[in-house]
This record gives sequence, C-alpha cells and structure tokens, in this order.
Amino acid sequence: MFEKLTLIGIGLIGSSIARAVQQKGLAKTIAITTRKAATLDEARSLGLGDIYTLDAAEAVEGADLVILCTPVGVYADVMAQISGHLAPRAILSDVGSVKGAVMKALEPMVPQGVHFIPGHPIAGTEHSGPSAGFPDLFVGRWCVLTPKPDVDTVAVDRLISFWGALGSNVEVMDAGHHDLVLAITSHVPHLIAYNIVGTVADLEADTQSEVIKFSASGFRDFTRIAASDPVMWRDVFLTNRDAVLEMLGRFLEDLARLQRMVRVGDGEGMQELFTRTRAIRRSIITAGQETAAPDFGRPHGTPETVALVQPQDVPDDAVREHGGGEDA
Amino acid sequence: MFEKLTLIGIGLIGSSIARAVQQKGLAKTIAITTRKAATLDEARSLGLGDIYTLDAAEAVEGADLVILCTPVGVYADVMAQISGHLAPRAILSDVGSVKGAVMKALEPMVPQGVHFIPGHPIAGTEHSGPSAGFPDLFVGRWCVLTPKPDVDTVAVDRLISFWGALGSNVEVMDAGHHDLVLAITSHVPHLIAYNIVGTVADLEADTQSEVIKFSASGFRDFTRIAASDPVMWRDVFLTNRDAVLEMLGRFLEDLARLQRMVRVGDGEGMQELFTRTRAIRRSIITAGQETAAPDFGRPHGTPETVALVQPQDVPDDAVREHGGGEDA
Repeated sequence: MFEKLTLIGIGLIGSSIARAVQQKGLAKTIAITTRKAATLDEARSLGLGDIYTLDAAEAVEGADLVILCTPVGVYADVMAQISGHLAPRAILSDVGSVKGAVMKALEPMVPQGVHFIPGHPIAGTEHSGPSAGFPDLFVGRWCVLTPKPDVDTVAVDRLISFWGALGSNVEVMDAGHHDLVLAITSHVPHLIAYNIVGTVADLEADTQSEVIKFSASGFRDFTRIAASDPVMWRDVFLTNRDAVLEMLGRFLEDLARLQRMVRVGDGEGMQELFTRTRAIRRSIITAGQETAAPDFGRPHGTPETVALVQPQDVPDDAVREHGGGEDA
Repeated sequence: MFEKLTLIGIGLIGSSIARAVQQKGLAKTIAITTRKAATLDEARSLGLGDIYTLDAAEAVEGADLVILCTPVGVYADVMAQISGHLAPRAILSDVGSVKGAVMKALEPMVPQGVHFIPGHPIAGTEHSGPSAGFPDLFVGRWCVLTPKPDVDTVAVDRLISFWGALGSNVEVMDAGHHDLVLAITSHVPHLIAYNIVGTVADLEADTQSEVIKFSASGFRDFTRIAASDPVMWRDVFLTNRDAVLEMLGRFLEDLARLQRMVRVGDGEGMQELFTRTRAIRRSIITAGQETAAPDFGRPHGTPETVALVQPQDVPDDAVREHGGGEDA
C-alpha cells in the first residue's frame, strides 16, 4: 500500500501501527525515529521496523507516509526538523488526541505539495512505551481524520484505506468538532479520573491503605485511565483548553445539582438520573465499543495477583524513565 | 457451618451468597424470601435455595443466620416483619454499602439475644438480579463487619469464618469509619460516574451518538458503574449523606485547582499530578484488588459485540422491571 512508512515516536500507538503494518504487509519499508536513544533501542530489539535513526530528517527521506506518534507538545520541534526533507506528494499525518490547535500550529510549516491529513485513532490502553503495543489495537475502533476541505481527496482516500486495513472504521470531520466531542468522551473523563485519584493520594496514609484494600467497590475503575501517560495528557490539556473548560463546566453544573439532591435527600431525582444513565451503556455495547461481560470481563474467583500479574504488566519506573511511551 | 441460612432479598449479592453456600455446603437449609413474586420465581427456577416464601417472618423461623440482601431503604420494613420471629441466638447480618445510619435505625428493633453484626462485602458487578450472581464473586475481596463492641465475640468469629469460607478477607471496624472510607472508594466514584453519564445523556442527539461511537477513549469506563442498580444507589446517597458530602467537597476543591491549571496552562502542575496518580494503581494491583492486564483485560482484536454479546448479558427492561436485583 505504501513504499515507505515513517513513524516519528514509537510508544503504544506508534508501535501498534508498526506491528499491524508488518502483519498485514502495508508498507515495503518502516522507518522509526525517536528523540531518545533508549526508546529507539527498545524498538530495534522488538523488531518493529527496517530503519532506525535518531535523525528525524533522515527518517522521512523518500517516505510516502509519515505519521507523528509523539505527544502533541513536541510536534512543532519535529516539524522544524523534517519539513525541508519531506518528499513531494507525501502524506503527513499524526495520531494526536487534539486536532484544532495542532493544525493551526503545523499548517504554516507544511511544504507545498505535501498532503497534511491529521488523524486520531480512538484506541489505546493505560500502558505506554514500545512494548505496550499490539497489532489488534485498532480493530473495531474508530479513527477520525480532520483534513482541511482543500486537501487532495485521493490522498485522503489512501489514508482512509490504510486505517481500514488496520481494522478501523474511519470518519472524516472538522477539527473543531472533533475537539469538542473528544473533550467530553476522553479529556474530561481523564481529568476527573486523575483528580479523584489525586484526592485519594492526598488522604492520610492509613486511610489511603484502606482505600486501596476496598477499591473494588468502584474507585479502582478510575485508576486505570489515571495511569495513562502523564506527558501526553499534559499536552492534551494545554492544547484543547477551551473545549475542555466548556465540557467541564457542563459537568460541574450537573454535579452541583446532584450534590444538592444528596444534601436535601431528593431520592426521586436521584433514582430518575441513575435509571437514565443505564441506557447509555447499553448503546455503547450495542455499538460494539464495549464488552457486555460483567465487570469489563475482569477475572473473578482467584486473587488476581496470583493469576495474572507478570512483571512486564506492571508499569514500573524503568518504563516511565524512557519516556512514558508516546513521549518518544 | 449453619443449620438454616435465610436470605432476605436475592439480587446479585444474595444470589452469589446462595450459590457459594451451596457449592461449599455451609448451610443445611437455605430459605429465600423476597417482596416480589417474580424475583422469588426466578430464584426458584435457578435452584438457589430449599425454601421459597414471600413471608419474611416465616422465612426466618429457626434460622441461625439471617442476612438482609435488599437495598438499605427497605431494612426498617423488613425488620418490622421479622423481629418477632427471629430465633434466640440467631446472627442477624446484612450486605449494605452504608453502616452507620442503618445500624442506628435497626438496633432498637433487634430482639434481646439476637447477635446483630452488620456486614459489607466489597464485591459486585454492574449487573443485578438473581441471575447475575456467581459463587466466586467474593473470592479475594474484602468483607467489612461493623459490630458494636458489646456484641458476642463467638458470634462475630462465626460470621468471620463464614465470609472466610466464601473466599473473602474479613476486617472488623467501626461503622462510622467504614462509611467515610466507602464514601471515597465507592460512593463518590459512583456519584461522579452517574453525573458524567448524565451530562452526556443531556447532549444533543447527534453529539450523543458520536460520544457513543468514540467512547473507547475513556468515557465508556464510567458507564459501567453508572449502570449499577438505581434503587440501591439512591438509598446509599440517602443514608450516607454526610460522609458523601465531605468527600465530594474534597474532590471539588481539588477539581477547582486542576480546572485552574488547565485555564492558566500550568503544564508542570498537571504533569506532577498525573505522574503521582500512577502509583495508586500499582498499589491496587499489588494488593491483589485489580488485574494487571491492560484495559482491564478487555477483549481486543474483534468487534466486541460479535465476540461477546449474548442476550442475557445486556441488562434489559425485563430485568429492570422485576426490581433491579437487590431491590428484592
């Protein structure tokens, strides 16, 4: 499908693309470039590509598809390095969770003749780094593309086919609309999860240890997304500020009303809300975006550490040191 | 271990106790009583007990262990029916998520000679009703008992052994302390999850359908606990008001600070918080209260509806009609 694919950054998303492209034979050559030597070494030892280099300019030479897979905060630096080296008619894309601010910053740096088609695969796990990726990550998930209206439609169709070959459904939309929808589906949920886990982290030590013991009663669900890559998420909130504050405002208005229901003991109002919310989960299951198994299909019946913990599964300081994944 | 166990209410928790007691032979006879005939019929067709009756007074006759498994809001009604019929030296317990207010309301109704030992197994799924239960639900989970200091220690030890036989770790603590810890581990997380799912439910129809499509980016995690039994949760917030408002207050103070970080673009502050929260999840995994598998071990690689949805897995209106599980 492509002669040469260049992945700039090789965290969870980049390494999942590399594995899927290898598995399905979608590019003759895969070039991988990172900022940190340790990340590049890890990618090499995992055999994720054909060319490995710390020189981003060299990596993009002759590539007909270049995908930025770093946190959005370093896009401008990367573009400054590669813009003079991009091949004519190359497709330049990315996988960032924010589109509007990013496009505004990058567009002036995109050379004439390069097809700039920003993208966002709605997929991931809370793990990060080159070893966290797997080829099936995108299967059944959505990928949003946000090209400007004047971008070459043949190039857009090629990128749609690429994501389709990775197993994704593809939707093309306006960048601003993407950012508003993702603010409520992704950014505000992460903000809230980080926040409540932070509230627990501030509790006195003895209460905190009880919270950990009794976390199966709800709290542990929030800790999953609050274990996501800190640098990537910092950049999301720095670049999608307005949409996040708008959606957070709606959430807080609703929470003030619910807080009042608790204070005055409005059982009827609570029961009405709690009944209405069930329907949303059913819709998500029906849409194929969630498992119908109880408790996310978590294992029951054995203390889970015994059955499942393997050293590589627990993110440790070593993993975090070399960049938290997408911070390549 | 017991001659006759009476379960009042047979939702997710009650039916899981019944299955585990049958599997391990912990009681010679299991009597089941519910308010609604349809729930009782379902329990009978599942073969969960030996005696089935709509008359709670009859159900507790001669029982040496009686466990209330209804929403806490109906405890007082149930007690009015059974208090004159409890056997001397019977153990009376429950599985409710709130302990302080409940004990205060019930204690005056407990006959002399009956051992009142409130309990709370920290286990569950978002599904409800007699068919949602399974015998391994309590394995590796904690069960908290909150007897008053003057309760017979032999009786407390018997109940500790009972929960140990179901696979649980048992901790005895003060009811007020339980309610404060559970407010932050369980009640506030549920409140927040219900709230954000409610915010989405109020979005315009076309945005809402996009939220459902792109929910794998974080939002869908919240929909799981927001699909829990509405009546049970209404009663939790009606009976644990003070502790919930206290912990919600802390959460909101922290959220105001984080909201300000987003507004002023304090990347350093955000990155510090987002890094700190990772450690909490690692502690929960190490404590054996969470799976270390990425994404809760959710299936990847196939559209999940195709692989997993079976009609009985999706809570539907029929299930909700006969009482949402613990609303027996």
